[in-house]
Amino acid sequence: MQPSHESQPTRPWPAVMHDALAARFGSRLSTALAVREQHGRDESPFDVAPPEAVVYAESTEEVAFVVQLAQQHRVPVIPYGAGSSLEGHLLAVQGGVSVDLSRMNRVLSINPEDLTVTVQAGVTREQLNREVRDTGLFFPIDPGANASIGGMAATRASGTNAVRYGTMRENVLGLTVVTASGEVLRTGTRARKSSAGYDLTRLFVGSEGTLGVMTEITLKLYPLPQAVSAAVCHFPDIASAVNTTIQIIQMGVPIARCELLDSNAIRAVNRAEKMALNESPMLLMEFHGSEAGVKEQAETVQDIAAEFGGLAFEWASTPEARTRLWTARHRAYLSGLQMKPGCRAVTTDACVPISRLAEAIVDSVAEVEASGLPYFIVGHVGDGNFHVAYLIDPTRPEERELAEQLNHQLVQRALRLEGTCTGEHGIGLHKQGFLVDEAGAGAVALMRDIKRALDPHCIMNPGKIFQP
Amino acid sequence: MQPSHESQPTRPWPAVMHDALAARFGSRLSTALAVREQHGRDESPFDVAPPEAVVYAESTEEVAFVVQLAQQHRVPVIPYGAGSSLEGHLLAVQGGVSVDLSRMNRVLSINPEDLTVTVQAGVTREQLNREVRDTGLFFPIDPGANASIGGMAATRASGTNAVRYGTMRENVLGLTVVTASGEVLRTGTRARKSSAGYDLTRLFVGSEGTLGVMTEITLKLYPLPQAVSAAVCHFPDIASAVNTTIQIIQMGVPIARCELLDSNAIRAVNRAEKMALNESPMLLMEFHGSEAGVKEQAETVQDIAAEFGGLAFEWASTPEARTRLWTARHRAYLSGLQMKPGCRAVTTDACVPISRLAEAIVDSVAEVEASGLPYFIVGHVGDGNFHVAYLIDPTRPEERELAEQLNHQLVQRALRLEGTCTGEHGIGLHKQGFLVDEAGAGAVALMRDIKRALDPHCIMNPGKIFQP
Repeated sequence: MQPSHESQPTRPWPAVMHDALAARFGSRLSTALAVREQHGRDESPFDVAPPEAVVYAESTEEVAFVVQLAQQHRVPVIPYGAGSSLEGHLLAVQGGVSVDLSRMNRVLSINPEDLTVTVQAGVTREQLNREVRDTGLFFPIDPGANASIGGMAATRASGTNAVRYGTMRENVLGLTVVTASGEVLRTGTRARKSSAGYDLTRLFVGSEGTLGVMTEITLKLYPLPQAVSAAVCHFPDIASAVNTTIQIIQMGVPIARCELLDSNAIRAVNRAEKMALNESPMLLMEFHGSEAGVKEQAETVQDIAAEFGGLAFEWASTPEARTRLWTARHRAYLSGLQMKPGCRAVTTDACVPISRLAEAIVDSVAEVEASGLPYFIVGHVGDGNFHVAYLIDPTRPEERELAEQLNHQLVQRALRLEGTCTGEHGIGLHKQGFLVDEAGAGAVALMRDIKRALDPHCIMNPGKIFQP
Repeated sequence: MQPSHESQPTRPWPAVMHDALAARFGSRLSTALAVREQHGRDESPFDVAPPEAVVYAESTEEVAFVVQLAQQHRVPVIPYGAGSSLEGHLLAVQGGVSVDLSRMNRVLSINPEDLTVTVQAGVTREQLNREVRDTGLFFPIDPGANASIGGMAATRASGTNAVRYGTMRENVLGLTVVTASGEVLRTGTRARKSSAGYDLTRLFVGSEGTLGVMTEITLKLYPLPQAVSAAVCHFPDIASAVNTTIQIIQMGVPIARCELLDSNAIRAVNRAEKMALNESPMLLMEFHGSEAGVKEQAETVQDIAAEFGGLAFEWASTPEARTRLWTARHRAYLSGLQMKPGCRAVTTDACVPISRLAEAIVDSVAEVEASGLPYFIVGHVGDGNFHVAYLIDPTRPEERELAEQLNHQLVQRALRLEGTCTGEHGIGLHKQGFLVDEAGAGAVALMRDIKRALDPHCIMNPGKIFQP
């Protein structure tokens, strides 16, 4: 029901292109199959689609060189960060060259007095937070994986913390971009706001590499909160946990993180991480603020949770205990995969208005329970965003088909509830049909008009978001 | 030094277009000179440029009808909200039809349980806040003027409160848009975040009517804070007030409003509003939160202000006193104009990274003081955004030239300080040269590529942002 990448024709890979890249990059050009295969996959269940070559770029100028050459020869260019995307973004479905940005990993300037930082696209979020720690600031966007900042910008990522600090949409101030013609542009400034012309920054953020390659990114930073506290709270059922979340948000509690794990996810985490969490639906919450503010938030939330049958809060009172809890949360996906040896996950990413979240989750749980397919659920429920991971045996097409059917039902429900088919993962290869269902053919046609205007020969990550 | 609208050729106004509009709109079509002149100006010092006709639309379908007709006849379409823009956005520099949206003033749906509201574009911000008041929610974006929500979206407006709640960029969830072909599209959903394709919502927000007409807008709402307190604090000089602001922001105090008035602005307000404020540079601040949170914020800010020589806070302890203060602030612009009878104001709108704000303001004050031109300054300084209003006699070209020269120096300084030429007013006619200075010719060329792709015959508010 979703378009397959197997139908896309691979474009020619001219020897002259290879030779020009070899002359410029030497050993930083690779055509080894293992390297190509590593760059032709991501965390999605799609089969690998290797590029013809991989280039390890070390500067914006080198990226521009590759793109200019690719433009001249009409060869696809696929930017590659940390390989952690989930919707097939990195697959070289039409061949071409993968531009690995992982060596562009310098933090270029930290401006603590303005709460901004400028990084190269290959910097990962964990590295960034290590490098800014001494300033008393941090970068909150946390999609779980140790993704690259470029990849996070490209997919408009969010994750935990977004409920309080926003997503990449709100936190990118400016970009250096190599456009499809190989020109280097800068968008935005270091000012916190601007009304200067079209919002090119927001156009590139979330464009999944289809409009250009982001090479440098200026981000907002935030003061490390004076006080942080984290707690888990268990509930008799998933609806109670979700209804607690709904009321937290409706009351305007400035909670920093509000994550749901269902009992399957907790069971997986307990097993993989040797933890002993109660295996009933759980909210994992974090509060940021002053000592008094955090205390006040926590009291309000405890009252709400108690109304919905939540058990007593279990506090992570030390930074080490907190880290342990969040590490478990971040490993939930990989832990979940271990529940069914050899499986892959088809992962949903719906996001709905907060008042519809209980309906969206509870009905989807009923469907997957009825199907018999193993699954687990995690969610950034404070945003109305949740993920069902359907565990399939990739050698059994009927399981993939069943998972896709469940995903389809879940997405159509989210759209009926005025939500979106993807809260944070992007469209990639997997959700192109859903994008049309959600935005309408007219809006997708307008996106294609923009694509055609900015990349007339469709060399920038072709076949992603929509078919060329 | 800035492009003049007088050089633009007026396009033909076919009788058949007029007749078709008359048949559909009857008395809601006007070609009376007074009506046309009213729609061919805004609050900028530009001379009036009346459209050929004004249509009062009452639905999205009617707007689509006008645009389809205009597309057929290659006639410019200029959306008109409340007429409060400041950069010449509404001037019919190439003729055409002004589509007055003020009768599209219905609040279509309030969803308090999701903190969202959908309005027609002609709803004003004061009306919106009246209509949602009973829900315990409010819409924070406040540019001062009682602007229409459509106009605020079109210019990416912000104003007071943006330091805490963001600008229109962060607070528009979705749009109904009539594109240049007359098609009706919907962008976004009611979910708080999405990664579904290009961010068309953010592309239309701030596009100043040049890509389509926004007719319906879905916005975020916020719970009315449990406690609100407002205070003024006077300082020995403008630098001390600005340095206080810088430290408030750097410490991460979640202040809701942080406004600067210089002594000229205060003098004007005292005279026009019969107030008795100390006529030295002043910060007007507001704190939102729980009782305890507000108290804590206020204590922190008082300590910072004291360090920089600030006098004791004067609290507006009742809602009435608070309203009186904010009314005075909102009337500062009109009060300022009264200081020089018959004058008009050339208004700047620079926004810089917070650490550069003192330099940006102090050096600009020195220049305008040396020039002898009357002026006043107000600023959303928590955002790094400030406005110098140069008061000119419109009959004396040398005054306008002097004001433009000062504006030029101020903007170039803001750009050197990594800021923007417009924090919230937009480009319009007035800042097209500055846009190129700020974004670079390449980025502006890319904006034009988008314009050409979405509006190939350039009928949507032509001549704004850039020349066709």
